[in-house]
Amino acid sequence: MAKHDKANTHESVMPRTKKGLVGRRTLLRAGALAAGMAGIGAGIARASDPIGLDSPEWMKTPGRGFSGYGMPAKSQEKVQRAFTALPGRPGTGASRTPLHLLEGTITPNGLHFERHHNGIPDIDADRHELAIHGLVKRPLAFSVETLMRYPMETRIHFVECAGNSGSFNQAQPQQTSAGGLNGLLSCSEWTGVRLATLLEEAEVSREGKWVIAEGADSAAMSRSVPIEKCMDDAMIALYQNGEAIRPEQGYPMRLLLPGYEGNINVKWLRRLKVMTEPINARDETSHYTELMPNGKARQYMFLQEVKSAIVKPSLGMTMKGPGFYEISGLAWSGSGRVTKVEVSTNGGSSWTAAALTPPVLSKALTRFRLAWQWDGSPATLMSRATDEKGAVQPTRASWISQYSPVQFYHFNGIQGWRVEADGTVKHVYV
Amino acid sequence: MAKHDKANTHESVMPRTKKGLVGRRTLLRAGALAAGMAGIGAGIARASDPIGLDSPEWMKTPGRGFSGYGMPAKSQEKVQRAFTALPGRPGTGASRTPLHLLEGTITPNGLHFERHHNGIPDIDADRHELAIHGLVKRPLAFSVETLMRYPMETRIHFVECAGNSGSFNQAQPQQTSAGGLNGLLSCSEWTGVRLATLLEEAEVSREGKWVIAEGADSAAMSRSVPIEKCMDDAMIALYQNGEAIRPEQGYPMRLLLPGYEGNINVKWLRRLKVMTEPINARDETSHYTELMPNGKARQYMFLQEVKSAIVKPSLGMTMKGPGFYEISGLAWSGSGRVTKVEVSTNGGSSWTAAALTPPVLSKALTRFRLAWQWDGSPATLMSRATDEKGAVQPTRASWISQYSPVQFYHFNGIQGWRVEADGTVKHVYV
Repeated sequence: MAKHDKANTHESVMPRTKKGLVGRRTLLRAGALAAGMAGIGAGIARASDPIGLDSPEWMKTPGRGFSGYGMPAKSQEKVQRAFTALPGRPGTGASRTPLHLLEGTITPNGLHFERHHNGIPDIDADRHELAIHGLVKRPLAFSVETLMRYPMETRIHFVECAGNSGSFNQAQPQQTSAGGLNGLLSCSEWTGVRLATLLEEAEVSREGKWVIAEGADSAAMSRSVPIEKCMDDAMIALYQNGEAIRPEQGYPMRLLLPGYEGNINVKWLRRLKVMTEPINARDETSHYTELMPNGKARQYMFLQEVKSAIVKPSLGMTMKGPGFYEISGLAWSGSGRVTKVEVSTNGGSSWTAAALTPPVLSKALTRFRLAWQWDGSPATLMSRATDEKGAVQPTRASWISQYSPVQFYHFNGIQGWRVEADGTVKHVYV
Repeated sequence: MAKHDKANTHESVMPRTKKGLVGRRTLLRAGALAAGMAGIGAGIARASDPIGLDSPEWMKTPGRGFSGYGMPAKSQEKVQRAFTALPGRPGTGASRTPLHLLEGTITPNGLHFERHHNGIPDIDADRHELAIHGLVKRPLAFSVETLMRYPMETRIHFVECAGNSGSFNQAQPQQTSAGGLNGLLSCSEWTGVRLATLLEEAEVSREGKWVIAEGADSAAMSRSVPIEKCMDDAMIALYQNGEAIRPEQGYPMRLLLPGYEGNINVKWLRRLKVMTEPINARDETSHYTELMPNGKARQYMFLQEVKSAIVKPSLGMTMKGPGFYEISGLAWSGSGRVTKVEVSTNGGSSWTAAALTPPVLSKALTRFRLAWQWDGSPATLMSRATDEKGAVQPTRASWISQYSPVQFYHFNGIQGWRVEADGTVKHVYV
């Protein structure tokens, strides 16, 4: 292993053997032959030097010991959430999941996106209660300990901020990473109590049609939720990816409304009041509405519609010459399962179905992958998702034409990356 | 909300309303009526006081701001891996996932169990390489950057140490938590390159039947792997739950052999040598064999067979009087999917099928749940899993009878918890 110090040079990742280095079977598995993109393979590994007894220095001394709770490698410190907050209001803003630096579909808890309206409250979980009241026969209060006694459910779901990808309403494409564009989006395994269980116990009156959810943060974030959603797949989430839900995500409990815009999944949930009508809370009038061309706004548009984004390659990565590359990205729909993701490498002239990584779950992120033999000429990459309801991502132009020019919530149009001949990647509108 | 300060008292979680508080529909959904265990429900919530404008102090001041990489709530600091190491050798030992404090099936990366043979190496990922050599036509070396170019796969799999639950070979049941007994077990979403892809590129010679995997730790942990497994579902894992694999789990890359005992999933993987025979490495002779009653040992028994454990209730938890409880636990098999988990609350006299939380995935942890109406009398809880190959967990006695009394690897016998009339839980052999 004499060449360790050259391992990261440009040379080491270029072909040093001449024969086809990603074989026919591999490409078949990756869907490339089906796509008519097969060829001689990647040629990206290098010939191995004879293996001797040389050992790197980290094999010559005992390693570090154990820890109660681990952290990523030090060299991964750049894998962080980028955040912006209002001047003088450090708890009002958002942080984004660095989607372009991650793989798979689960977001590690330390990197789940955040959107806070007045910071993260420091809640004493032993004193926190969730009250269910209003139009119910039996008002009830639930401590964390009480909720732990109830039947639990575990499901994998994405949460996406209504404002995610909002910069697509701008005239020029923002030159930022895939995470910068789309990182108000994360996916976790959530465990908690089905809200319907608690509402059945409280016995909702016949006239109860809306449920007002209020958080215990200092913004008292409040949203109105249709009773039908509460009785469907709504959950009082207590755990995220196995451990207690984190402060940024609503510790000790949050409302989870799978497929609905992020902020209605009220964090630090302290009460649910059953009413006949929605309440027009601050965050459903001043924010989170859809302004139409005629100046009127649509309210109570909760659904995060079918959407996809390529994260690899994307801005910030540089292609190292012609050859094999995997195109990969994320697709999701608030309406259910993603059934198809098509990828174009020629700006939409033709499309190829990408492979969807199983299990493809309802209202969860789905990873798609497609083998690509890049010939070195400029290429425009796009992805287009379809969900189980038959909904298809619109073009950006089609999406924009529906709304006022300042509306930016719920953007789900088709996105594009331009790969230049020099291997750099830039953001383009398509 | 005047009663916040009483929320965590015993009184607050006891019935304060008289009617059935977990309704018939809920119990049906939880499988309790089917099990003949229905009744009046739990009665565990308390009546809500009138909701006023009172706010806890954490709603009266702006909260904390954003962070690049988050951590659990401070009050969760007790949720840690417990670890033991050899005297004077702080990197030789194991730490356990606190299964009894977690929910769902995904293990957060900070709590994945560890087993190190000489500590965690501090590897410079830019200099690390994986060599494939020996009986191949084309020896190759792969840097991390090179591997990133290959087609990736994402799959959810458990990893379990061969020595997990080893204390069940002792004469008396160890009085420790579910995590203490079974916590050398974790489950993650892994992403990486299929090993078959790399071996096909190197072109394994016809006489190549075993692959020797060596880690870059200072124990140079080495194991022999049958070529059939390498060409099947083996993966060079680079990501765990979305982010780069952590140092404790093999940063920058580990071998993942789904369903095989933990240590053969070689961490910090630096080479794979194709040979005609296994090498009888230190960790397949001095350890990780199965000693038989006649004094001979079985070698190369890789499979983690079908198994289950109840984690709720378990030792350390106290039942708060008769009423509704959910029994929940984990089931898994190295052979594929779990198809059935039966639970007994009467020491094995009768069994009821628990609900399996979807998606039930191959070689992954599966969460099972069963609603239970506890009448307050002593009860012995057991679980028994069956997998898609038809394999069923044996009794402890049956498992023990196969081996020498000092053999402790690969215990997968049926486990039991005794719930006493006073609500305490102890570990019992069944």
